[in-house]
Amino acid sequence: MTENRTWTLKQLADHIDARLEGDGECSINGLNTLQTAQSGELSFLANPAYRRYLADTQAAAVVLRENVADEYAGNKLIVDNPYLSYARLTALFDPAPRVTVGVHESAVVDPSAELASDVCIGANVTIGAGVIIGSGTQIGPGSQIGDHCQIGENSCLQANVTLYHGVSVGNRVTLHSGCVIGADGFGFAPSAEGWVKIHQVGGVVIGDDVEIGACTTVDRGALDDTVIGRGVIIDNQVQIAHNVQIGENTAIAGCTGIAGSTRIGRNCTIAGAVSIVGHLTIADGVHISVNTLVNKSISQAGSYSSGVVASPTKVWRRNAVRFGQLDQIAQRLSELERRVPPTDKDK
Amino acid sequence: MTENRTWTLKQLADHIDARLEGDGECSINGLNTLQTAQSGELSFLANPAYRRYLADTQAAAVVLRENVADEYAGNKLIVDNPYLSYARLTALFDPAPRVTVGVHESAVVDPSAELASDVCIGANVTIGAGVIIGSGTQIGPGSQIGDHCQIGENSCLQANVTLYHGVSVGNRVTLHSGCVIGADGFGFAPSAEGWVKIHQVGGVVIGDDVEIGACTTVDRGALDDTVIGRGVIIDNQVQIAHNVQIGENTAIAGCTGIAGSTRIGRNCTIAGAVSIVGHLTIADGVHISVNTLVNKSISQAGSYSSGVVASPTKVWRRNAVRFGQLDQIAQRLSELERRVPPTDKDK
Amino acid sequence: MTENRTWTLKQLADHIDARLEGDGECSINGLNTLQTAQSGELSFLANPAYRRYLADTQAAAVVLRENVADEYAGNKLIVDNPYLSYARLTALFDPAPRVTVGVHESAVVDPSAELASDVCIGANVTIGAGVIIGSGTQIGPGSQIGDHCQIGENSCLQANVTLYHGVSVGNRVTLHSGCVIGADGFGFAPSAEGWVKIHQVGGVVIGDDVEIGACTTVDRGALDDTVIGRGVIIDNQVQIAHNVQIGENTAIAGCTGIAGSTRIGRNCTIAGAVSIVGHLTIADGVHISVNTLVNKSISQAGSYSSGVVASPTKVWRRNAVRFGQLDQIAQRLSELERRVPPTDKDK
Repeated sequence: MTENRTWTLKQLADHIDARLEGDGECSINGLNTLQTAQSGELSFLANPAYRRYLADTQAAAVVLRENVADEYAGNKLIVDNPYLSYARLTALFDPAPRVTVGVHESAVVDPSAELASDVCIGANVTIGAGVIIGSGTQIGPGSQIGDHCQIGENSCLQANVTLYHGVSVGNRVTLHSGCVIGADGFGFAPSAEGWVKIHQVGGVVIGDDVEIGACTTVDRGALDDTVIGRGVIIDNQVQIAHNVQIGENTAIAGCTGIAGSTRIGRNCTIAGAVSIVGHLTIADGVHISVNTLVNKSISQAGSYSSGVVASPTKVWRRNAVRFGQLDQIAQRLSELERRVPPTDKDK
Repeated sequence: MTENRTWTLKQLADHIDARLEGDGECSINGLNTLQTAQSGELSFLANPAYRRYLADTQAAAVVLRENVADEYAGNKLIVDNPYLSYARLTALFDPAPRVTVGVHESAVVDPSAELASDVCIGANVTIGAGVIIGSGTQIGPGSQIGDHCQIGENSCLQANVTLYHGVSVGNRVTLHSGCVIGADGFGFAPSAEGWVKIHQVGGVVIGDDVEIGACTTVDRGALDDTVIGRGVIIDNQVQIAHNVQIGENTAIAGCTGIAGSTRIGRNCTIAGAVSIVGHLTIADGVHISVNTLVNKSISQAGSYSSGVVASPTKVWRRNAVRFGQLDQIAQRLSELERRVPPTDKDK
Repeated sequence: MTENRTWTLKQLADHIDARLEGDGECSINGLNTLQTAQSGELSFLANPAYRRYLADTQAAAVVLRENVADEYAGNKLIVDNPYLSYARLTALFDPAPRVTVGVHESAVVDPSAELASDVCIGANVTIGAGVIIGSGTQIGPGSQIGDHCQIGENSCLQANVTLYHGVSVGNRVTLHSGCVIGADGFGFAPSAEGWVKIHQVGGVVIGDDVEIGACTTVDRGALDDTVIGRGVIIDNQVQIAHNVQIGENTAIAGCTGIAGSTRIGRNCTIAGAVSIVGHLTIADGVHISVNTLVNKSISQAGSYSSGVVASPTKVWRRNAVRFGQLDQIAQRLSELERRVPPTDKDK
């Protein structure tokens, strides 16, 4: 692994606005779970199920809530939300390499591009005509930035990211390797001679504070733009088709696909391997569980599902055959109900 | 966004063989829907559902059918198939950057490669030994072309495309960023010491007029070639395994996977997130709907489905449990039918 | 296609420890199936279903089992396991280009990286600080190797592979194009201001003899490492989330997703388009069939399924509606059973 960093417990307490009890000069060089933390590492108790590990942890200090503080005799950082505090602390221990300000000599930058003075442009990057890149933004090696893209401040494109022309990326955005933003939406008109391509003349707009995972694809719009709202987080291998709109702070897990022109609300949580067909509207605050197929608009917040869960193949095989007989089963049941009407006793 | 182009209405009418009514000198600088078109933009009416927007559109002109032409007083282009005409017009308004003929100085081209004089080879491209690239073809920055690949005329490989060795690509083919053509098929023989790799000695052949989406993978064949027929269109994140054959003009939407040695017919439409197992034969003209699992060959044209659709999680949970009892339910039903045989009255 | 190689039948017999009957000097220049093999090609009979092709094959020689050797009069290589022998022979006929030892002049290698003297580093590769690469390993063009990665001996990273910082790769590992190893796991804590990123401070450890397919993603761990065991084979477009552990010799087919912290046993076979939710434990020797959703741990070896299979859409539509009535159907059935209790005759 790579370099770690060391902080005093007092510094960490200040970073997360925690109440410190114990030795503020205690030196902390990493984070770990209660069970695996070693001397010098900080741990945290967020989920009550792990409370039983508190007594025996080897951690140098623990982040926890007031109501369990008495159960732990060592150094502690008392906070309202240990999980959130842990998230904030991880930024201080991230071993990701610090990049060097400047443009690598192997990068190919069009003379018309406007780069802030403190950007970090990696090796073998290509930056097209008219591109604008804001202060503090880094572009990893092998990434290709098409003409007239705009990228805000303090954003990070990892290695081998591809932006087609005319893509707009906000501030503090992270795009992971292999993701492709702005490829053509899948639009073709049938004709006697085969499919005729509908050139996709819209763009893609990605709001501030968005994170997009590795090998995720976000297509450009047919006429208007595809829009990823502020604060949206998207996992790996997700497919966002043309003219989709994703509302602010919505989260989308891996392997999910969203077809063209569908609008997803704000604060939704969409689990992995979900399929959402095109031209739907999904309300704010909707949760869709893993492997669900959504083929109708959803107008009410709440949780929706359709996944069929695993059983031993021998059992599944019998039930799967019956699935193909379901309508017949229902009709046979109705027929029986007609033959055996409820008596007074049954009412 | 990037540069647009401007045409007279007469030029556009000629491009799509339309009958022009109105001002042929009217200047058109973009395309848009009836509802959102602004002055200077051309719109179209293909779907009757949008007829109600015709009266109030701000468009400078509208592409429409003869039978609705009377309902619109402004400039019009009258055609038989407005959607197809719209598709043909999009090519004139595509803001995608024009590329410069030539080989970028940072590209690494093997001396044995044969490139037509008017190709466009982007920055940081690698072109292997014995590669042949036809006239008018462009290779986007960061793309890697393996030894002995052949690419036809007027094809476009976008940025960060990967072709392994010995891949054959036709004319007028578009390959989007992140797609990988010719990686090894997933073939291994079990042995007492673990999996033994079956080296994939076949290739990949991609016909003319094919389009393949971003992050889509098409594996090379085990012994023979994997074949993508002429005019096939494939969306993003699709997986095509070794020795699959896709018939002409078939369309495949995003996130679909097709396992090894399956043959798909011509003029099929396969929706998103479909799974087709290996060694099947799918007839011409088959439609497979979203999220369907195909585990048997299909010999008749028509539409096939298996997706289970979303319901509120509370409702789903009860039904999902019953899915696991389906065989038992069917058996209990048969038992009841035995106990309550139909009477003469029931017949 | 690319260059082939030629061997004598005797050389091939030695390579797979076969008993040779016939002309050991016979020259073999390729492999093919019994039906398609031409003069000069070697074929094999592994699956008894193909026995009927034995008499008429044009192959120059056939690899087969002792018990069918009498049925074939031509040159033969007699072995215990023809399929495994065929796999071993494919290595001799692989047309993949031999790479040249050395570091391409366009590669950007950090001075602190330690490369064995016989590595092959392709064009436009970037190799970060502190990277260690073992003897005989090749890195394809356009690949990006983050700081402090370690790659063992005789491994092969194809073109356009991305390793984030601190990834550890074993010996004899193959990583296919477009795969991304070590991107951030999808970890965020909710807060009043939106999602707060949990920096992923763990790494990824990939054992010896692993193969990972094109556009597959393996995320780095949150605190501990994500671990891919020795001998694991993974197909294209697979998503392996943070802190997943995959046991030795497990095989995972395309388009499958495994969510965070799940542990998969050894010698499992996971078919395509499977979804496995997070924090589960799957035993050794489990087979999961195509399109299955696994939402509970599996403690027994065996085969598990949940896929729903295709039927004509008209039939499916009726059954799909009934799926939404399943609980009601089951309740109505119970009610009927109550009304019509079994008689003595029924028992």
